[in-house]
Amino acid sequence: MAEKNSLLEVYKQTKGQLVGHGPRNIQILQDAFLNVDSGLESDMYGTGKVIENFQAKMAQYLGKEDAVFFPSGTMAQQIALRVWCDDRELQSVAYHPLSHLEIHEEDGLKKLHHIKTILLADKNRVIELDDVKSLQEDIACLLLELPQREIGGQLPTFETLKAISEYCRERGIKLHLDGARLYEILPYYKKTAIEVCELFDSVYVSFYKGIGGIAGAILAGEHSFVKNSKIWKRRYGGDLISLYPYIISANYYFDDRVNKMERYYEDAKELASYYNKCYGITTVPDIPMSNMFHVYLNFPKEKVEKVLINIYEATNIGLTGRINELDEQSCYFEVSIGDQYSTINKTEIDTVFSLLNKQLKEII
Amino acid sequence: MAEKNSLLEVYKQTKGQLVGHGPRNIQILQDAFLNVDSGLESDMYGTGKVIENFQAKMAQYLGKEDAVFFPSGTMAQQIALRVWCDDRELQSVAYHPLSHLEIHEEDGLKKLHHIKTILLADKNRVIELDDVKSLQEDIACLLLELPQREIGGQLPTFETLKAISEYCRERGIKLHLDGARLYEILPYYKKTAIEVCELFDSVYVSFYKGIGGIAGAILAGEHSFVKNSKIWKRRYGGDLISLYPYIISANYYFDDRVNKMERYYEDAKELASYYNKCYGITTVPDIPMSNMFHVYLNFPKEKVEKVLINIYEATNIGLTGRINELDEQSCYFEVSIGDQYSTINKTEIDTVFSLLNKQLKEII
Repeated sequence: MAEKNSLLEVYKQTKGQLVGHGPRNIQILQDAFLNVDSGLESDMYGTGKVIENFQAKMAQYLGKEDAVFFPSGTMAQQIALRVWCDDRELQSVAYHPLSHLEIHEEDGLKKLHHIKTILLADKNRVIELDDVKSLQEDIACLLLELPQREIGGQLPTFETLKAISEYCRERGIKLHLDGARLYEILPYYKKTAIEVCELFDSVYVSFYKGIGGIAGAILAGEHSFVKNSKIWKRRYGGDLISLYPYIISANYYFDDRVNKMERYYEDAKELASYYNKCYGITTVPDIPMSNMFHVYLNFPKEKVEKVLINIYEATNIGLTGRINELDEQSCYFEVSIGDQYSTINKTEIDTVFSLLNKQLKEII
Repeated sequence: MAEKNSLLEVYKQTKGQLVGHGPRNIQILQDAFLNVDSGLESDMYGTGKVIENFQAKMAQYLGKEDAVFFPSGTMAQQIALRVWCDDRELQSVAYHPLSHLEIHEEDGLKKLHHIKTILLADKNRVIELDDVKSLQEDIACLLLELPQREIGGQLPTFETLKAISEYCRERGIKLHLDGARLYEILPYYKKTAIEVCELFDSVYVSFYKGIGGIAGAILAGEHSFVKNSKIWKRRYGGDLISLYPYIISANYYFDDRVNKMERYYEDAKELASYYNKCYGITTVPDIPMSNMFHVYLNFPKEKVEKVLINIYEATNIGLTGRINELDEQSCYFEVSIGDQYSTINKTEIDTVFSLLNKQLKEII
């Protein structure tokens, strides 16, 4: 019963939430399959119209020769790096210290491939051209994550991207894009996916962040790269007899949401400005560069949780379900804007933040 | 248009088929989700009721302490072998020359884990106790596939299994069960899953062979084994945010079909006897040991295909969609009995086989 009044439980019971697309429940799948012809054949071990058509569609969207659907980005990206290492006959790559590969994959890249990983830049900022230039040794591949999720979704300038791309090409270093949130950054750069991806040799995109699908990923690049990736996909056990539950839902929510990223981005900037007006709160980045940002609070986690629970119960609006402790005096949480933000009217949001500001001041 | 009249295309157009559960189409998923509450929450990275309840149910069914759901058997089994190798600090395992790991996984086990694999027994027969005793060096784990799919689903005697299990336990060799078709062999052994599995340290079972689900696997064993397997599952990128599309369908078709294996087995024996009465045909095994067997024909593949197409068109009943060439004078195909066999009445089957026998004789 202690769980019942936790922040997450109270958050889930709120009528409206300022973040996300809504609950991750079975309806996500049921909606995606509602109007699909029951007679449509399953994909079979990477073949069949369902998978081939979607791969072709995503290759075109990303401006790449070819693409392959993966059950997960973890699998797709490790394989991308392995293929580039084999291609260069050099078992060494570089990425940000807070890359998904470094902190969320139980060292899969190292344990499965024995690839050396060089961490570029400080934890708290994005990789710049000078970081790449400072490399003391040759690498097969540089991975850039756009936006850098663990620091609130920060981005380098597009000029920096172009300069890094040019620098890598001159030196034969392959450039891979961790584009888990690629669609989400296009409004900030004012570029198409093709314009961003043409700076990279290979690209991974996800279907359950901004797109809000169930799971799954696309890895795209030249034919030979994709062909090799498919062999590794089988080695990993990722070449399932049927991947259509993820593919059909990915396609459905891609079509539904890929053109809503501008709105999510504008909503994120508005929401961040609400937070930044509150006592003891700052967002990172100050002005969001995508649909996401982090909220830092100069108060102990337990006190913030109590305040938020009060506010959720008073307003029936939820801000976040989880808070991470930084130290005894501060904490933070992540915000990702989806369909839900725009369903809440501004008067209600004003009320929420006026209450939040008031109650935070009373913490002292 | 050449494809249109291929064996597979004509087979797919037949009204009834003697093998399988029916077409692998989207309806498999739609049926499984029809009566699931839309509000049911997704599993999240291996946690949540959907995945935890199913894992507990399968652990109980298999008589093991713990179980973990995997997107694929390829991933589950490589990981099982790796965990046992690490446990024994010995990078060496043994299995049958036609094991799935040896012939269908692009050498994933070797490429990802550098584990030495020793092939036991001849290709054309199952592993016997003497094969295990003949090992010239220590191994961490022995994998037994029951039934041995690539040789028509042959099985060792239960006495042999017990003797191998005892031999391995005495020597500290872990025994792993490739039980992709475990349910299907229980009628032959007249044993429960628990009685078979207690001879093994770890067990993998599948949900899209006899069970007829969409995809997915369970790996079961002691707590510590499963705990380590989960870490590797994350390393492989198999720890998807949501596996429920496979889990809910696996559960649905498990409940629907796990108790129909006796019927499939009896049907397989009946169908094999039909084939064995035909001119130039033998089945392997002669009398099936599960719901599956292989059909060998002493005729060129092209001629057999023509005969089968004639029969499918004449009777509207399909026998197989694919034939594999052995050499210029012979070919074979695989039979797996499912729900469809018992929907065809015996008079029709008599007609099919009387036609088949007649037309094969005319080939000469």
